[in-house]
Amino acid sequence: MKKGFTIWLTGYSGSGKTTIASALNKELVNRNISCEILDGDVIRQYLSRGLTFSKEDRCENIMRIGFVAELLSRHGVVVIVSAISPYRSAREAVRNRIADFIEVYAKCPINVCEERDVKGLYKKARAGLVNNFTGISDPYEEPLNPEVVCETDTQLINESVESILGYLVKTGLLSVK
Amino acid sequence: MKKGFTIWLTGYSGSGKTTIASALNKELVNRNISCEILDGDVIRQYLSRGLTFSKEDRCENIMRIGFVAELLSRHGVVVIVSAISPYRSAREAVRNRIADFIEVYAKCPINVCEERDVKGLYKKARAGLVNNFTGISDPYEEPLNPEVVCETDTQLINESVESILGYLVKTGLLSVK
Repeated sequence: MKKGFTIWLTGYSGSGKTTIASALNKELVNRNISCEILDGDVIRQYLSRGLTFSKEDRCENIMRIGFVAELLSRHGVVVIVSAISPYRSAREAVRNRIADFIEVYAKCPINVCEERDVKGLYKKARAGLVNNFTGISDPYEEPLNPEVVCETDTQLINESVESILGYLVKTGLLSVK
Repeated sequence: MKKGFTIWLTGYSGSGKTTIASALNKELVNRNISCEILDGDVIRQYLSRGLTFSKEDRCENIMRIGFVAELLSRHGVVVIVSAISPYRSAREAVRNRIADFIEVYAKCPINVCEERDVKGLYKKARAGLVNNFTGISDPYEEPLNPEVVCETDTQLINESVESILGYLVKTGLLSVK
C-alpha cells in the first residue's frame, strides 16, 4: 500500500484553495496516485448539516473533516482538504490526529479575495446578509508555521501546485515530481 | 488497487453486530486486506454529535456513515459497518450510494438481546431512562433481502463469520476464503 497523507489548504474564501486543490488533484491522479478532495462546503452538506458558522460549530466541522481525512490517509489515500478553517486551534487539533499533515496556506490579501468574489459572498457579507463571514465579521488566524505558503495574488496556479509538489518530493512523500 | 466494498451489519442492540464485525475484521486483516470498522456509536461521537435518536436524526447518522463508507470503499478499503440502522429506507439509501454493498442481518430475537443486555441499555429503556430505544420504544424494520443472515442466537461467531466470507467468495469479492 502506498503511503497516504493529508494536504490541508487553509485561507480566506476566494483565496484559491479549491482551484489549487483541483489542479493538484489532477497532477497526482496523472501519477496514478489514489487521491480524494474533501471540500469544506461539500462536507458541510454530507456530514455537518445543521452546524452554524459559530467558532464552536466551525471547529466541530473541521474535526469531522479531519476524522475522515485521517481514515483515508491511513489507508493510503492522498487527501486534499480545501476548507477556510480559520481557527489555529482547530487546525492544530487535526494536525495532531493525522500522521502526515501538510498545511498549505493559500495566502491572499482579503481585499483581493473580495475583488474576486467568485461566489458573490463578500457582497452579501458587506450587505449584512451573511453572518460570521471570515475576514469581514469573523477572524482568520494565519498559520504560524505552514509547510507551504502559496501567495495566490502573485503566483500562477501551476506555480502554487509546483511548490506543493516540491515540498512532497523534498520530504519523501512523493517519489517523482 | 484492490476492490473495496462495504459490509453493513444491521440488527438490534446486543444482536452481535460488533462481535461479528471484530471477528470478521481479524479474518480479513489476516489476509492482508485493508479493512476498517465503522461503529455506529463511535461515529456518533465523531461525526454526529448533537443528533438525537429520532427517525430523522438516525437516518442522518446512517447517511453520514454511508458517506464515509463509500469514500473508503471507493479507495479499495473493505469497510465493516456495525450500526443498528433500524430504518429500511435509510439502509436502502446507503445501498444506492455504495457500489458493492453487502447487507448482513444480525438476526436475534429481541428477548434474547434483552437477556444479554451487554451494555445495560435494555434495563434503562425498560425503566424509561432511554427514549427511542430500538425494539422497545422504537421500531426495527427487518431487512427484506439481506445478502447474508446471521442467526446469532443459534450460530457460533465463527459460523456467522464463515457465512459472510462464503458470500464474499461466491460473489468474487474475495478470492480466497
